[in-house]
Amino acid sequence: MKEDDSLVYFATKNKGKYAEAKQVASEHGIQLAHLNWDKYEIQDDNISRIASLAAEVASRESEKNSVVAEDAGFFVNALHGFPGPYSSYVYEKLGVHGILKLMQDVTQRHAYFSSAIAYSSRGRASVCFEGIVRGSLCHAPRGSRGFGFDPIFIPTKGDGRTFAEMNIEEKNQLSHRAVAFGKFCTWFTAHHGEK
Amino acid sequence: MKEDDSLVYFATKNKGKYAEAKQVASEHGIQLAHLNWDKYEIQDDNISRIASLAAEVASRESEKNSVVAEDAGFFVNALHGFPGPYSSYVYEKLGVHGILKLMQDVTQRHAYFSSAIAYSSRGRASVCFEGIVRGSLCHAPRGSRGFGFDPIFIPTKGDGRTFAEMNIEEKNQLSHRAVAFGKFCTWFTAHHGEK
Repeated sequence: MKEDDSLVYFATKNKGKYAEAKQVASEHGIQLAHLNWDKYEIQDDNISRIASLAAEVASRESEKNSVVAEDAGFFVNALHGFPGPYSSYVYEKLGVHGILKLMQDVTQRHAYFSSAIAYSSRGRASVCFEGIVRGSLCHAPRGSRGFGFDPIFIPTKGDGRTFAEMNIEEKNQLSHRAVAFGKFCTWFTAHHGEK
Repeated sequence: MKEDDSLVYFATKNKGKYAEAKQVASEHGIQLAHLNWDKYEIQDDNISRIASLAAEVASRESEKNSVVAEDAGFFVNALHGFPGPYSSYVYEKLGVHGILKLMQDVTQRHAYFSSAIAYSSRGRASVCFEGIVRGSLCHAPRGSRGFGFDPIFIPTKGDGRTFAEMNIEEKNQLSHRAVAFGKFCTWFTAHHGEK
């Protein structure tokens, strides 16, 4: 593998996402670089379509061989999937307390995070990988790690702590982004490995 | 004016918006046709940028001479402008009751609607016109006309009724969309009038 071939750029403004992805990539022997990029985002209910177009635009405009972009969402079942693809906007405007207020007196508290990682090379059509983590909403925020809605989300397969009470390694054992990024890494290694 | 020159297509999926705009256009002697179009929307805090790009894509792809697209938002001051450009998504997911729940026990109830009408001809850069209507949120929905958040919005310059308690003519005396569309019509008539 040429050194340049193994270098993948992650187009994102979010350093927390980059830190999580970098850890997964390094486990697969993939070198992940940060492309500080104002993501081009369409309004769409489907995070895969959002991530795919973002990766194509970023890779075309940056002229990099290997670019990934991510879109993720936090989906609350009782709110018909809200805030979904608009999670970062909703987090900025309403915070975790807005979600908890909307969920006041609601007993069905299932929620999930979903992540779509799209890969594009110089603007060509993306290949997309998805990951999901199911869990439930707690009644008050707990923990100070992670970002976004992490303090109110308890993954089902965890030990009762919220995402914000875990360190990156613990969160990556469970997280939607790690699952999606792991799928991408497996695919990338198979397609761009030793020639 | 050639008949074809006075024909403007409104690219929208929303029949309520089209009905409001058609009424304003006819007062200016402009013939407004409905272009049933799945609007191309970017994620952006700025409704003018969303409308502008939508008009350019719609006019380029439809190959029409005169296309307008609109983006509008409902901005609640105490919620830092939420739901803003994502009003239709939020309305679909949370409805008016979601907004009222978020505003429970909040005394500062100022809100406004804003509309941006963008005009583009065959994909060329848009010209954009904005309108705004200020008002306040009521505590329970009233009225069954209009659409979206109309039942919980009382315009300041009205008589205490919500937008949903008014007919189209009454709403158009006050509405953001009518203001923006009126500005467009004045400009369009000046630039595409008798030659």
